[in-house]
Amino acid sequence: MQKKQGPASREAREAGAATLAEIAREAGVSAPTVSKVLNGRADVAPATRERVEELLRRHGYQRRRANTTAIPLLELVFHELDSSWSMEVIRGVENVAREEGLSLVLSEHAGQLSIGQSWVDGVLARRPTGVILVLSGLDAAQRAQLTSRDIPFVVMDPAGDPGEDVPAIGATNWQGGLAATRHLLELGHRRIGVIAGPAGMMCSRARIDGYRAALDAAGVAFDPALIREGTFHHESGHAAGLELLGLPDRPTAVFAGNDLQALGLYEAARELGLRIPDDLSVVGFDDLPLARWVGPPLTTVRQPLVEMAEAAARLTLDLARGKQPPTLRMDLATRLVVRSSTAAPAER
Amino acid sequence: MQKKQGPASREAREAGAATLAEIAREAGVSAPTVSKVLNGRADVAPATRERVEELLRRHGYQRRRANTTAIPLLELVFHELDSSWSMEVIRGVENVAREEGLSLVLSEHAGQLSIGQSWVDGVLARRPTGVILVLSGLDAAQRAQLTSRDIPFVVMDPAGDPGEDVPAIGATNWQGGLAATRHLLELGHRRIGVIAGPAGMMCSRARIDGYRAALDAAGVAFDPALIREGTFHHESGHAAGLELLGLPDRPTAVFAGNDLQALGLYEAARELGLRIPDDLSVVGFDDLPLARWVGPPLTTVRQPLVEMAEAAARLTLDLARGKQPPTLRMDLATRLVVRSSTAAPAER
Repeated sequence: MQKKQGPASREAREAGAATLAEIAREAGVSAPTVSKVLNGRADVAPATRERVEELLRRHGYQRRRANTTAIPLLELVFHELDSSWSMEVIRGVENVAREEGLSLVLSEHAGQLSIGQSWVDGVLARRPTGVILVLSGLDAAQRAQLTSRDIPFVVMDPAGDPGEDVPAIGATNWQGGLAATRHLLELGHRRIGVIAGPAGMMCSRARIDGYRAALDAAGVAFDPALIREGTFHHESGHAAGLELLGLPDRPTAVFAGNDLQALGLYEAARELGLRIPDDLSVVGFDDLPLARWVGPPLTTVRQPLVEMAEAAARLTLDLARGKQPPTLRMDLATRLVVRSSTAAPAER
Repeated sequence: MQKKQGPASREAREAGAATLAEIAREAGVSAPTVSKVLNGRADVAPATRERVEELLRRHGYQRRRANTTAIPLLELVFHELDSSWSMEVIRGVENVAREEGLSLVLSEHAGQLSIGQSWVDGVLARRPTGVILVLSGLDAAQRAQLTSRDIPFVVMDPAGDPGEDVPAIGATNWQGGLAATRHLLELGHRRIGVIAGPAGMMCSRARIDGYRAALDAAGVAFDPALIREGTFHHESGHAAGLELLGLPDRPTAVFAGNDLQALGLYEAARELGLRIPDDLSVVGFDDLPLARWVGPPLTTVRQPLVEMAEAAARLTLDLARGKQPPTLRMDLATRLVVRSSTAAPAER
C-alpha cells in the first residue's frame, strides 16, 4: 500500500487517476460528501461511507497532502502500555518529534494485537503527519484508508508478519537468540532451558530459532521438555521458571526470552533456594534499564529500543515527505551484554 | 488564574469583560490580529504580540470555548521521560483519555523543571481540551496565556510550590516518610539513614520531614550525618549508598527516598558484601512494578501513581467543562507495603 506514496503515486495521479469529483459522481453523492468521508467525519450514512471507501480503494485515490498542517501530529500506537519497554519506545519517538516540531499523540488499544475501526476513524479526523504502530498490524481495508488520505505508517518490531510492502523497523532477534545461547554453551552449559514469548509473535519465534541454531551448531540435542511458552510478562517468567526448575533433571541455564521473564525466573530461583549464577545462569533479552539494577545484574541481549523507535519515526517522516527510503524494512543489530547472571555450571 | 475558569468566569465576562473587538481597538490592531495571537500563530510581530498579550491579561479576557472541537486533545507534559514512574503516569492519563474519547499528546521538555515558551506557543496552536503538567510549573505569564484561551491545566505531584490557586494532585508524602521510618523504628533500628531527593522538590522535603517526625516521636535524635541528597535516579542511590555504608558507625537501615534510589543502594550493599535485610534494611518510595521483582522484594511506600494521574486527568476535564471541583488540590493516600528488604537489626 505504501508503494502508492511518494513520487510514484504523484505520477499515477497525473497519469489520470480518479479525482475527488469523479469519485463523487460514480458514488452518486456530492463532492463535499466524499470530502467528509476522507476527513473521517461521523455525519455520513454507513452505506454511503462504505461505497465511497470502496471507490477510493478501487481507484487508488490519494489526497494530495497540503504543504502546511495547522497541527503537525505524529501518532504512536501501542497494543499495551505496560513496562519500561514501552517507555524506551516513547522516548525514541519523542526525541524525533521534538526535533522536528511535531506533537506526539499516544494511544493504546488495550492489549489487542489488531486495531479497531474507532481508532482509524480518529486518525482520519486528526490527519497526522504519520503513524507508528508498535507490535500492531492493520488489516488491508485499514491500510487502504490511511493510504488514500496520504497518511504514512510504519510498524515497529512486528509481532506478526505485516506483509512485504509494509514499512517496518525491527531488531535482529534471531542473531540475539543465537548469541545468548552460544554464550551459555561456551560457559559449558548443555541443559539450557528457554522461556519463549507468545507463539504468535514473530520476534519470539526468531529468538527461539536462534537458540536452536546455536544448539545445532554445537552438536547439542534439542530437548522440547526444556521449552516453555510465556507472555513476555514477569508473572509468566515466574510460573515457567518454577516448572523448569522443578524438573528432575533441571536446566543449569535458561534463556528467558525477555528481561521481565528473566526477573520472574530470578524470583522462582529465590523461592527454590537456587543462587544465580552459582546454581543457575540466566540470560534476558531487551536490556531494559532495570537489567543493570537487579541483583545480580542481568546478562542480556541488548535490543536498541530507543534507536529503533527513532528509526521508525524518521522513516515515517521520510514517507510523509515523499522521500523514497532505500528499503521499507530494517532490522537494527542486537548485541549480548554480559553481566553477572551467567557463569560456568557447577560440578554435579 | 484558574479561578477565572468555570461559572465564575462566565459571570465576569457577562458582567462586561472586554471583547475581542475592544482589545483590538485598544491595541490599535485588527480583530483578526488578536485572533492570530490567541491561536498562537507565528505571523504576528513580537511587539504586537506582547501588547495584545498584556491587554488580554489586564482585561482578564477569556475566549468562550467552542462546543465542539474537531480534534479533542489532552496534553501531558513531563520534565523528563525516564523511568517506569513516567510509564505509570502515562497509563493513568491514557485510561481517562481513552474513556473520554480524547487523544493524548505527550511532550517532554528535556529535564527542565520550568517550561519554555515554544511549548506554550504549540499548546496555543493545538488548543487542547486541557493540560496536565507532571512535576512542572508555569510562570505567571504562561498561566495567563492558557487562561485567556480557556485551556485549563492541572499540576501532578508538584515539585515546587505551584501556588494556592493552581489545581494540583499529589500524594501524602509526609505521611509516607513517617510510615517508612516508623516501620524501621518498630523493627528496632536506631541509626536510620536517608537518601533524599533533590532539595528543590517539595515531595522530597515532605518525605524527609515525615522521617524526622517519626524519629522525634520515638525520642531518637536526628543525626545530619545520616542524610544524603540524591537526584531520584539509580546512580545517586548507589553513590549516596556507598557513602552512608562507608561511615565508621554505618546505619542499620536506610529510607531511600524512592525506589530507584533503593535499587542503587542495593547495588552499593552488594558491592560491600552486605546482605539485605540481614545487614541492612531498605525502604523505598513509589512502589513501581520493579519493587516486587528485585531480590529481595522491596519494602516501600506505595504512591498510587496511576490513580493520581487519573485524578489529574479527571480534574482537568472537569475544569474544561466548567464544573467547579470541591477543592483545587488533592493528595491521594500513600501506604507502606512490607516485603522482604526490612528486618530487625543484627546484634552487633
